[in-house]
Amino acid sequence: MTDKQPIAVLGGGSFGTAIANLLAENGQQVLHWMRDPEQAAAIKNDRENPRYLKGIKIHSGVEPVTDLSATLAQCQMIFVALPSSALRQALQPVADQLKGKMLVSTTKGIEANTFLLMSQILEDIAPEARIGVLSGPNLAREVAENALTASVVASEDEDLCRQVQAALHGRTFRVYASSDRFGVELGGALKNVYAIIAGMAAAMGMGENTKSMLITRALAEMTRFAVKLGANPMTFLGLAGVGDLIVTCSSSKSRNYQVGYALGEGLTLEAAVARLGEVAEGVNTIKVLKAKAEEMQVYMPLVTGLHAILFEGRTLDQVIGALMRGEPKTDVDFISTSGF
Amino acid sequence: MTDKQPIAVLGGGSFGTAIANLLAENGQQVLHWMRDPEQAAAIKNDRENPRYLKGIKIHSGVEPVTDLSATLAQCQMIFVALPSSALRQALQPVADQLKGKMLVSTTKGIEANTFLLMSQILEDIAPEARIGVLSGPNLAREVAENALTASVVASEDEDLCRQVQAALHGRTFRVYASSDRFGVELGGALKNVYAIIAGMAAAMGMGENTKSMLITRALAEMTRFAVKLGANPMTFLGLAGVGDLIVTCSSSKSRNYQVGYALGEGLTLEAAVARLGEVAEGVNTIKVLKAKAEEMQVYMPLVTGLHAILFEGRTLDQVIGALMRGEPKTDVDFISTSGF
Repeated sequence: MTDKQPIAVLGGGSFGTAIANLLAENGQQVLHWMRDPEQAAAIKNDRENPRYLKGIKIHSGVEPVTDLSATLAQCQMIFVALPSSALRQALQPVADQLKGKMLVSTTKGIEANTFLLMSQILEDIAPEARIGVLSGPNLAREVAENALTASVVASEDEDLCRQVQAALHGRTFRVYASSDRFGVELGGALKNVYAIIAGMAAAMGMGENTKSMLITRALAEMTRFAVKLGANPMTFLGLAGVGDLIVTCSSSKSRNYQVGYALGEGLTLEAAVARLGEVAEGVNTIKVLKAKAEEMQVYMPLVTGLHAILFEGRTLDQVIGALMRGEPKTDVDFISTSGF
Repeated sequence: MTDKQPIAVLGGGSFGTAIANLLAENGQQVLHWMRDPEQAAAIKNDRENPRYLKGIKIHSGVEPVTDLSATLAQCQMIFVALPSSALRQALQPVADQLKGKMLVSTTKGIEANTFLLMSQILEDIAPEARIGVLSGPNLAREVAENALTASVVASEDEDLCRQVQAALHGRTFRVYASSDRFGVELGGALKNVYAIIAGMAAAMGMGENTKSMLITRALAEMTRFAVKLGANPMTFLGLAGVGDLIVTCSSSKSRNYQVGYALGEGLTLEAAVARLGEVAEGVNTIKVLKAKAEEMQVYMPLVTGLHAILFEGRTLDQVIGALMRGEPKTDVDFISTSGF
């Protein structure tokens, strides 16, 4: 990059803030766009994000801004860390400005009616942009605290991957490249469902064998599903597959895990969501995923079981019993159906 | 199986005891062979293994025995749960009796000079036996306590797989089949090395991002190595690959993890082994693995780094720094070199 341009980070949540800080620590000038002027002013004055990542000092190289159009005009590389519910509305009005720019989505989610992933929404809005995703076992707070962390940038555009690696790679943050954008992004979206199941298991006092079985079978079924939709199964052996799944299913901090934990204690879904104060992404994902799995005829016993508990009035014991009684299958059974 | 024959379990350690109990709970008659007559007598009288799995009641269908030749004469299916150091000596003298029998190894390890895995030693001793392995995320105590657990039986012999599934599959123990015996068994042997690294990271207070990165990169490098030696990479997505790796790297009960933890606290290898009272399998494995990786020219930075700490006087900080500074690589880089 000649005549060093600033890099944009869109979204004032915890992950956007952590990425903005990382970039600034690497010597980049960062325009950190957020909708809320009060939040931007607070960051400018206090060098701390008032709502997220309390206690993390915001680097002086991060400039909080609120004019989206002006921000896009100055930047070639744009990290999109907007909530999944806000992404389309926020960027549709500025679609013309995105042409030729590098848009890197860090948002996980699936659009309900279209089954589009976030980078596919970006593509839909800005077909002439250069599109990538960043995903991996990256708890925002740990990234911000400079814990050793690895992530994946995925895009068909190799030059984009290289530029993102150059911008983000640092003393404590290591960035790997992948050409399987769809697989990397799908892994990030699906894992939220399995984090609910992991939370349930923890609440029921299940041990390490059970947890490991759940994570592994979760990996098998998400891979089976992803392969059917065109992803590369090897992606799920990597950071954005099993890596992200492990961190999400192990961390009691995630909202999805907490909803599952409450369900495992015997609360209803309504009561669990009420206790949490908001809906966890995985609860939305399970609905669209169940429908899509049926449409594609992919065998997903964990998804089916969780859906039965959440929306069909089945008990945990019934579902666990059915899972354990199931016919013994081969270990990595999508091999034989994927064309490998 | 007509005229129901007893099933043999060889080895009075914790995993052999847990498997013997499982089989008996499923209605099988079990001959549990152990070398030590005192141990056998104690189990017979007290229905508890005096050295392993304290507090677990031994099922009345398990008969402790000490005559190996008589045991083999009565059984077609034989689980081999002997220590890796004792397996060859114990079975070589009775090799003639193994012809045509089903031998299922549950022992993890690599023979130092030959780089043979345990089932390959069985094959070497008894070329006309039917050979399989059982491996997976199976902490013996949790199996014995009937925690929900999944395992893999692997063999080229499909009928053997089906018979082992029928014998072991139960209310709390689920058995999947695989035809990749070598991959399944290699996963079980290699994971011990990475458990040492996980223990180190825990002692140093590393968070979830770091732990997940380590497990994922461990998976990538063990898969890369296994593929080079002829295993199926998909095996490592399954229970005997990533599943066993997760449980071993998460459980503070494993000896390998404990050695790593002591190293992470700053102890020397000698002091760590002294504290533990015995050598952990992973310490032996790392030596043969490092040599084999060099011979085969497989890139294994975690193995190289751990070897440098254990045997070459390097510090943890030096090795971590080198790992994080390394050139960014692709995420699942064995894809491009494995012929896929």
